[in-house]
Amino acid sequence: MYDLLIHNATIVTMNADDDVLADAYLTVTDGAIAAINRHRVGTPLPAAAETIDAEGGIVLPGLVNAHTHMPMALFRGLADDLPLMTWLQEHIFPAEAAFITPEHVHAATRLACAELLMSGTTTCCDGYFLEDRVADAVDEMGLRAVLGQGVVDFPAPGVADPAHNVDVAAKFIDRWTGYRPLITPSIFCHAPYTCAPDTLRRAKSVAREAGALFQIHVAETREEVQRLKTEHGCTPVAHLDRLGLLAPDTLMVHCVWLEKDDIARAAGGGAAIVHCPESNMKLGAGIAPVPRLLENGLTVGLGTDGCASNNNQDLFKEMDMAAKLHKLAADDPTALPAKKALQMATIDGARAIGLGDVVGSLEAGKRADIIVLDSRHPRMRPMFNPVSQVVYAAGADSVRDTIVDGRVRVRNRELVGTDVATLITPVAAVARRILPPVVAD
Amino acid sequence: MYDLLIHNATIVTMNADDDVLADAYLTVTDGAIAAINRHRVGTPLPAAAETIDAEGGIVLPGLVNAHTHMPMALFRGLADDLPLMTWLQEHIFPAEAAFITPEHVHAATRLACAELLMSGTTTCCDGYFLEDRVADAVDEMGLRAVLGQGVVDFPAPGVADPAHNVDVAAKFIDRWTGYRPLITPSIFCHAPYTCAPDTLRRAKSVAREAGALFQIHVAETREEVQRLKTEHGCTPVAHLDRLGLLAPDTLMVHCVWLEKDDIARAAGGGAAIVHCPESNMKLGAGIAPVPRLLENGLTVGLGTDGCASNNNQDLFKEMDMAAKLHKLAADDPTALPAKKALQMATIDGARAIGLGDVVGSLEAGKRADIIVLDSRHPRMRPMFNPVSQVVYAAGADSVRDTIVDGRVRVRNRELVGTDVATLITPVAAVARRILPPVVAD
Repeated sequence: MYDLLIHNATIVTMNADDDVLADAYLTVTDGAIAAINRHRVGTPLPAAAETIDAEGGIVLPGLVNAHTHMPMALFRGLADDLPLMTWLQEHIFPAEAAFITPEHVHAATRLACAELLMSGTTTCCDGYFLEDRVADAVDEMGLRAVLGQGVVDFPAPGVADPAHNVDVAAKFIDRWTGYRPLITPSIFCHAPYTCAPDTLRRAKSVAREAGALFQIHVAETREEVQRLKTEHGCTPVAHLDRLGLLAPDTLMVHCVWLEKDDIARAAGGGAAIVHCPESNMKLGAGIAPVPRLLENGLTVGLGTDGCASNNNQDLFKEMDMAAKLHKLAADDPTALPAKKALQMATIDGARAIGLGDVVGSLEAGKRADIIVLDSRHPRMRPMFNPVSQVVYAAGADSVRDTIVDGRVRVRNRELVGTDVATLITPVAAVARRILPPVVAD
Repeated sequence: MYDLLIHNATIVTMNADDDVLADAYLTVTDGAIAAINRHRVGTPLPAAAETIDAEGGIVLPGLVNAHTHMPMALFRGLADDLPLMTWLQEHIFPAEAAFITPEHVHAATRLACAELLMSGTTTCCDGYFLEDRVADAVDEMGLRAVLGQGVVDFPAPGVADPAHNVDVAAKFIDRWTGYRPLITPSIFCHAPYTCAPDTLRRAKSVAREAGALFQIHVAETREEVQRLKTEHGCTPVAHLDRLGLLAPDTLMVHCVWLEKDDIARAAGGGAAIVHCPESNMKLGAGIAPVPRLLENGLTVGLGTDGCASNNNQDLFKEMDMAAKLHKLAADDPTALPAKKALQMATIDGARAIGLGDVVGSLEAGKRADIIVLDSRHPRMRPMFNPVSQVVYAAGADSVRDTIVDGRVRVRNRELVGTDVATLITPVAAVARRILPPVVAD
């Protein structure tokens, strides 16, 4: 007797052989995938406590959003279409200073988790402040996450004295290590221009001792590269390399402005990269050289970035955007094919954040993070190639069911066990204080 | 007694004053908008035969997809990530030659209409062959459409002898003029490189006499521009200008590769333009200079293009893509703000296809083409700015109800009066003949 059976499915495994099984079923025991099999006509299906009929739909590994700032859901749409520095200094920073409290972080993260689950994301990698409250919310909502307490060399929410920033992060890692099975603590240094060399070294040292992921924004804008060259005489990536940070378990986010040696350094050091195309486009930052990163053997995941710069956490849009953007950038419609975009949003993202052995593909023994797409929706038909369909045709509206660690968190497009209205109410209440209401709640 | 009342809404009118009304309601009589008003607390709502409670959601004019090839829904995902000529000559052209029959055009268009309605599009501008069957399907599904019979100087489905291509199109216009209130006939010349000068002149003459829209793909690729220069000694736009085609009621699709004089010519002639960012990206064609077109006073609508090169007809993705793409292209996060992207997908698109007085904004007297977005979805909250929310946060999954000409066509995310399975079955049957099935239907 299995805990869960998903049948009548086209299973896109994202395993090393790129197996796609039509007329297949998948079983789950104790939160792990027990087996994946073709279903021979006339043979009985295995018994299970809970059964999901995929109705011919596509079954995929849950998507992995490798870069989020979940609490920033609070600022979704607060300020758009503005010059970067105006946006940051006149809108986002003041709003953060005034409204990023433990309570608001918790409420906004719960809402962000609902958005993620309902759009097919089962794992995210987050970095922000007051990350304890992010972790509480994630724990409540049942998402899998790598969560990094933020480190920056100026006062931040929950870290009044920046001299203690790395200590606060170290304590966060201590507290959450082995505490909840779906939560993996991490450390998140904001950027090479907001953290001094010593801060970066100490943070990586803490991460290394804990076996934790070290996250950092790198080379997002040309201005950052110019600043690093002025202040440290080298590019941001070279700067990290000199500090010994380009090691495995280092996750470099953005990497838009890389010079030739940067890619070789990153590849040599074993760091992984997160590509956030929509955020980079919306802020006018540029296009990360993803095809060259891949040619150089780097692992590249896909991230939405926070809601303040996207303004959604929909990885279906992000996959489509990535695949199309790099065709445009390369002037080549064969660049970044659908399969690679889907790998970035699943197995490659899982590897990038250190969970490649746990999730990211559907294989016996891996944890049961699974999504079921509705193939009875007009936009999903006809169906010549499930992988192409997922990347270029599907949308968040294609996600019917979301399962994390064997537990059904979204069923028939509805969040299980949580009334969405209860997530919206507290966030709407804060929003009314941030700006006068345009919309009645 | 009104026919329809939509209340408890934030109404984004897209009128000339950019009015956004919170706590508002809208009434419909005989398929037209009767009035739009704020709802004063404690006052009764007007009586109506049918009432829709928007539950605080955003009410928008139905979206206008200014460039589709609906029958190509049959080839969604058939061939992707291929060089343009391989894609066209080895996959799309042979599939069209073998499978574009009147029956298949009808079936694929019905499926495409369902996708459009369910993702919030109430009007589209289409161009293809066997357009009579497209019109039948559109009429059955209740969409509003400008439909152009295709013209090309080689044999095409339904036009065995290209010598009669313009005559076939003229008869199509005759047949559908005034025949069905939601259908406006048009003529669609494929491109300046596939239609001889005389064909183009005759087609525009037919259109002019009928007061019909003349649609044409223009300057989609660099190769096209080079070819026109070789064959005609000038750019595609200059070529059309010499032929007297850059007049009002001419719709130029793509316009990716424009030279300096081209924009002035287009603006001077009064033609309108359709921007198809996703298709242009996916085929590696390039980026149309939309900000410059707008600066020069041109009307620019938004289109998805056909499903073979997108592979969806989701205008929410297209708006977001357009707004982000031009920020990237301009290296400026203030480029193509949300409001302009939404105008392109509503009122500007309506104007571009000749329906600016009929639809595209919510104003008393205009036809009642309306969509209701669900603001109780996590991705729609908080709500600081409804216009930004529609462009950057919403997705097709935000569309709850779709009303065309006063009739509810999608209610609570379900197509009204048509079982989607009956639309999928015939398309899936053809798809099995085009390629061996990967997925069981």
